[in-house]
Amino acid sequence: MSGQSQTRLIEIEQNILAKNDEIAARNRARLEAAGIIAINLMSSPGSGKTTLLVETIQALKDRLPIAVIEGDQQTSSDAARIRETGVPALQINTGKGCHLDAGMVSVALDHMPLPEGGILFIENVGNLVCPAGFDLGEARRVVLASVTEGEDKPLKYPEMFATADAMVISKTDLLPHLTFDVEALVANARKVRPRLDILRTSSTSPDGLGTWVRWLEGLAGQLRHAAE
Amino acid sequence: MSGQSQTRLIEIEQNILAKNDEIAARNRARLEAAGIIAINLMSSPGSGKTTLLVETIQALKDRLPIAVIEGDQQTSSDAARIRETGVPALQINTGKGCHLDAGMVSVALDHMPLPEGGILFIENVGNLVCPAGFDLGEARRVVLASVTEGEDKPLKYPEMFATADAMVISKTDLLPHLTFDVEALVANARKVRPRLDILRTSSTSPDGLGTWVRWLEGLAGQLRHAAE
Repeated sequence: MSGQSQTRLIEIEQNILAKNDEIAARNRARLEAAGIIAINLMSSPGSGKTTLLVETIQALKDRLPIAVIEGDQQTSSDAARIRETGVPALQINTGKGCHLDAGMVSVALDHMPLPEGGILFIENVGNLVCPAGFDLGEARRVVLASVTEGEDKPLKYPEMFATADAMVISKTDLLPHLTFDVEALVANARKVRPRLDILRTSSTSPDGLGTWVRWLEGLAGQLRHAAE
Repeated sequence: MSGQSQTRLIEIEQNILAKNDEIAARNRARLEAAGIIAINLMSSPGSGKTTLLVETIQALKDRLPIAVIEGDQQTSSDAARIRETGVPALQINTGKGCHLDAGMVSVALDHMPLPEGGILFIENVGNLVCPAGFDLGEARRVVLASVTEGEDKPLKYPEMFATADAMVISKTDLLPHLTFDVEALVANARKVRPRLDILRTSSTSPDGLGTWVRWLEGLAGQLRHAAE
């Protein structure tokens, strides 16, 4: 590629991101005004985002209003799974797109019942690269890392982990059957983001989601009335 | 300066930061193991950090163990003010240094009673530049901005605000006597750090610290048992 066309590409990318950030700021103001905590949930495909959401909703739905925006290139099966729990879910299909953007979320907010005073989960397209650069207007960015994926993911996809607020470690019930070093994963993640909150979950042990659920409830208490 | 000596200076700076980050990681592991949430509190000189701490301690000390590390170039008057509230405080004098570093905090942790299961506040040297680059091993970085300082501080000191988790807006009781646009301050801060939590405080209204205190309590709930 010539230097000139490369410069042009960088300009286009900057314009796209600047436009996205403007819309994200409007989404954020709108969500905060309604007392809604938006969580942008990101991971590789198949790390267990939807399963985590279904179980999290079961644990929290009697205490907090919840709604979900589901992002996938195709299909609306995830939104259908979420709706079976009794909370509203809206599916966004990105087609060829490898991530959600703030404009898509803005349209979604216009077309769904909003969980005032509660939590809006936004399940991003399964991808450790593209979603990292796009602010959706969320209050927190959470990356899910499954113990079946390898300890080196934070080093290989540093932007994703550097922009995350918390890392949920999933499928820990499989640890006895794997050679996976959880401490190495944590150390690698902390190398790119020292203040990352680390939340270990297991969907098979009795309080396996406890740490994550307490983190969400604490966040709700933390941000209640913030920005008023 | 010649290119060569500039390169050499950059190398020295990188070495200092790498060494600091190593010690910070050890501080962080030690604090997390003791269930202690460390808050690195930063601001311009005279923004009200110590006053905020004294009032925060009054609000929280019956519910959570608290201790304070005080950083100043000279004097130990801030630690003395904190100790009057009944919680332990250790003063670090940085001499010519314009910020705390992880090594200083490591030594402090060896020489003070640690608030297990509670909060360790680390009041940094009053400075909006130098402390921004130094990880101390804290769980959260909080920047205090007083309404007497001007709305443009986040744009003029972007690194400080870009690395902060929350901004406490202080001295809001003075707003009737000032031409200060709080919304402009918030917008400027969100430009450099979109997901910054915004906490407005006033030390003269009845629940003036409520938002900040709830944020801290939520954080304690959020991080309880994280990283276990």
